[in-house]
Amino acid sequence: MSEVRSWVETANGDTDFPIQNLPYGVFDAGQGARMGVAIGDMILDVAKVDHGLDAALFGRPSWNAVMGAGQAVWGALRSRLTELLSDEAFRSKVEPHLVKQAGAKMLMPFDVAEYTDFYAGKNHAVNVGTMFRGAENALPPNWLSIPIGYNGRASSVVVSGTDVVRPWGQLKGPNDELPRFGTCARFDLELEMGAIVGTPSDGMVSVEEADDMIFGYVLLNDWSARDIQAWEYQPLGPFQAKATATSISPWIVTKAALAPFRTSTPERERPLLPYLQEKTPMLFDIDLEVGLKPEGQDESIIARTNYNEMYYSAAQQLCHHTTSGCSMRTGDLLGSGTISGATKDSRGSLLELSWGGKEPLTLETGESRSFLEDGDTLTLRGAAKGDGYRIGFGDCTGTVLPAVDLPDWAK
Amino acid sequence: MSEVRSWVETANGDTDFPIQNLPYGVFDAGQGARMGVAIGDMILDVAKVDHGLDAALFGRPSWNAVMGAGQAVWGALRSRLTELLSDEAFRSKVEPHLVKQAGAKMLMPFDVAEYTDFYAGKNHAVNVGTMFRGAENALPPNWLSIPIGYNGRASSVVVSGTDVVRPWGQLKGPNDELPRFGTCARFDLELEMGAIVGTPSDGMVSVEEADDMIFGYVLLNDWSARDIQAWEYQPLGPFQAKATATSISPWIVTKAALAPFRTSTPERERPLLPYLQEKTPMLFDIDLEVGLKPEGQDESIIARTNYNEMYYSAAQQLCHHTTSGCSMRTGDLLGSGTISGATKDSRGSLLELSWGGKEPLTLETGESRSFLEDGDTLTLRGAAKGDGYRIGFGDCTGTVLPAVDLPDWAK
Repeated sequence: MSEVRSWVETANGDTDFPIQNLPYGVFDAGQGARMGVAIGDMILDVAKVDHGLDAALFGRPSWNAVMGAGQAVWGALRSRLTELLSDEAFRSKVEPHLVKQAGAKMLMPFDVAEYTDFYAGKNHAVNVGTMFRGAENALPPNWLSIPIGYNGRASSVVVSGTDVVRPWGQLKGPNDELPRFGTCARFDLELEMGAIVGTPSDGMVSVEEADDMIFGYVLLNDWSARDIQAWEYQPLGPFQAKATATSISPWIVTKAALAPFRTSTPERERPLLPYLQEKTPMLFDIDLEVGLKPEGQDESIIARTNYNEMYYSAAQQLCHHTTSGCSMRTGDLLGSGTISGATKDSRGSLLELSWGGKEPLTLETGESRSFLEDGDTLTLRGAAKGDGYRIGFGDCTGTVLPAVDLPDWAK
Repeated sequence: MSEVRSWVETANGDTDFPIQNLPYGVFDAGQGARMGVAIGDMILDVAKVDHGLDAALFGRPSWNAVMGAGQAVWGALRSRLTELLSDEAFRSKVEPHLVKQAGAKMLMPFDVAEYTDFYAGKNHAVNVGTMFRGAENALPPNWLSIPIGYNGRASSVVVSGTDVVRPWGQLKGPNDELPRFGTCARFDLELEMGAIVGTPSDGMVSVEEADDMIFGYVLLNDWSARDIQAWEYQPLGPFQAKATATSISPWIVTKAALAPFRTSTPERERPLLPYLQEKTPMLFDIDLEVGLKPEGQDESIIARTNYNEMYYSAAQQLCHHTTSGCSMRTGDLLGSGTISGATKDSRGSLLELSWGGKEPLTLETGESRSFLEDGDTLTLRGAAKGDGYRIGFGDCTGTVLPAVDLPDWAK
């Protein structure tokens, strides 16, 4: 059992949000959007307590100002919140500013500047490559040297709980002569972690500097339209297939909270170029799972894996992102890439779980799934497991709604 | 000769900025960043005149608030500015708020929300495809059906006059076994137009609605590191190769100013799907040229072409961009893709002009160029030619600086 305890009793039991976590979110409990810190089953309205920092950091309901303020401010805020929520002496002043999580609606915790999505899970890359190019050419030639990624669409990022409408798009089957405009029939999830850039950069940064820039992490579901992607993605990469929605968990778990769970990226079969080499562990040991709940039925856990399966850390990805001189900004979001383990039940997408639809998955309810159906609710969960406590992210959930009717002008 | 004349005499002569243009920029003439309108060789400080609109639209030095206010506001502002700058009755009140362009520094005219770059010039796509895949497979299979594009990096967008530092990156020649980290040796320009989204959208929009959303156009130079791109871009598309810089001209030329120059996209060899079909002309007849000036030498014009060479209009690109439900926002910037004509001297990139470096270009000074050298200054120019006047964009210029020294941690 951990030493530090909170006077918020629910923080000391079975919870994602013990005093060791203190993740940051934005909530609305009837008084508009407010910046909050999760503690047990409660949320602390942080701007209302004596946080000891510049009030301007809490001037609008978004964590960007704090994120951009840098490590000293991050450390000071975390220390102060730990003090306020553990020492009984502060209870009377702080307790009036707690609200129940159950009655609050969670909003986007930060303004996304730009969104980049990587492809840095080796099992995922091998699985997808094997399906599309055969086992011998599974990994692209650059994969072992570059944390390859593409720029995604920041406007697609939504907070957990936001419904996701099945997209329309251009589709062309391998035997079709011409494409047609239709609704996506191979709609999928991707289990990822998102790293959030706090302090900005201008010019090349090292892996260590990149790690310093990262404010925290969220769970991330990169909703993917496989059939739209198949027709559009050569030669310029995924575009509309990835622009429908990208869901993130409502709480930003700070790098500080995850510090005890640092772990190294794996041994390299090809040495990394010096600029990408890590001197200290920059990945994290975080258990992850995906639940799929058909409408009106019970949820099945369809995958269990761990963030430590990644081949490249977020710090390595961020370092590579700056090599060309690309400026990074407060609020940039970096998706890890799909996280799949080595076993069949640890794959982070239906594409892999159903092997391209050839081996449909049987849910615990007996239903089968190759890809997502309307009414399906997806939930990502994640937690780092400490000694007597866990650092959780809160659910990252979204329900698939049917496609909109085709407008007359598109018929 | 056009009927409407300005009391600013230089607006009636040989200028990019007659009264028919009235493009929007942000300038600093010693009093900080201000919103301005170009007229002849002067700039009008628009917030200081009786513009008749909500002052909040001019509350900070960026055109985003006006851009997001929609067509009625755009029309009202243009009408009012035309009146103020043509009618002698307003001269005494307006003239004190004019400053010389020659003494002003131009800044970014708007905040870029997200940046998307397309690949919608057919001659360019055929040229590049022929070099890389041979003449028979020059166009990707989806090219005649989709205005294909990729998400670029908004933080890379800089205003004309900003120096561009040659990038570092991973490089691997076709005969190298492993990549190395080095400076780009095939640094290039791409001559493009940029369309700027004014009013936002949520869900699919038609080509007509997309055209309504567009606020105006700029010249755009999509600086490209060809050797970095060659190694990184499969399978997820260009990434660091395009993130060094994207230069835009300082003046946003409005859609209204370009209205007399509308023209249709070309005949289709493959019918477009209904959603992409244009009912009215949505492309523009704009003459374009590229000048290359080696350090300390005279400039050579290395390409002359026209925006009417595009296969897809910005309205078609924007419509396609929304098909998956992707939200578009005020300040989104859409690059047209490289604009090349059918002849050798009308190609919009050195990659095409020097045919991948195999046929170096001879400049008027006698020097040759396969790709850009340090000290080279690139200038894009563009103008729609009316009866006795022209609608110009102002120069879009940038000088290539040598790469930074490699930091110790990358050695």
